[in-house]
Amino acid sequence: MTRILGIDPGLRHTGWGMVHSEGSTLRHLGCGIISPDDTLPMAERLMALHRGLAALLAEWQPDEAAIENTYVNRNPAAALKLGQARGIALLAPALVGIPVAEYQAMEVKRAVVGTGAAAKEQVADMVRRLLPGARLARADAADALAIAICHTHHRATRLALARGYVPA
Amino acid sequence: MTRILGIDPGLRHTGWGMVHSEGSTLRHLGCGIISPDDTLPMAERLMALHRGLAALLAEWQPDEAAIENTYVNRNPAAALKLGQARGIALLAPALVGIPVAEYQAMEVKRAVVGTGAAAKEQVADMVRRLLPGARLARADAADALAIAICHTHHRATRLALARGYVPA
Repeated sequence: MTRILGIDPGLRHTGWGMVHSEGSTLRHLGCGIISPDDTLPMAERLMALHRGLAALLAEWQPDEAAIENTYVNRNPAAALKLGQARGIALLAPALVGIPVAEYQAMEVKRAVVGTGAAAKEQVADMVRRLLPGARLARADAADALAIAICHTHHRATRLALARGYVPA
Repeated sequence: MTRILGIDPGLRHTGWGMVHSEGSTLRHLGCGIISPDDTLPMAERLMALHRGLAALLAEWQPDEAAIENTYVNRNPAAALKLGQARGIALLAPALVGIPVAEYQAMEVKRAVVGTGAAAKEQVADMVRRLLPGARLARADAADALAIAICHTHHRATRLALARGYVPA
């Protein structure tokens, strides 16, 4: 059994989702959003995000973390800001010694919905189906859970391969 | 008397410079580069940068920090990566409770050389003149010292204004 923390980083809203995986069974543990006060200076916004993630890591003690390798189709100034939040999201799990896997947005969609071209709503619908009981307050939380689910799939494949399983 | 840490963030090389400011006297305390192993996974590279900055903060106990608000004229993917390093550079001083000032690249050049259009070499030359004894191993260290010098100027103006001084 393993606890996975999925993180969908953003400067205004960082989604998080915690899932429990045992064999092929997946269970929702919790999800939510960290939204630092955007009137604060940048360093304090990032500190609020860091503290939010550190508190989650301390409370849930996940074994591994996963984060989306955000596809950047925006302007450089927006990418720089997103990068700041992403740096914090990568750092927090590393500081407590747990590995952080990175996945492309398409891999996450493919793992959850079956196609890399899935719409945001399809991802959220599928997350609800795979994790009955999850209350998805915002799309960011659904995305974070999707990232965690994606990681459990990849992890299972990696473990199966390590045991000598050869995929057809 | 105040100790200022200037930071020029970068994923491959983060420059740092520590200056001591007392009245109008400026003294060089130290400068250098933090260059995390770029073959490591991103989370570990960022952790190495975080630990490097945390060690500097613990050793030198600066009173304030300053960072350049990098002008982004690059592609979004590069901006995202730079943003990750910048997030770490903003977080480290905030975590030990010292304020982090942000300056535009032009402000830094104007403060050190007198014109916002100064070339990189002019900035390094002026840093050498203002801080005799500073050994500038790399351009990133010179930039970091320039950022620290810029902050001491702005700080002096702010303090003078707070004392009732009205600039001509």
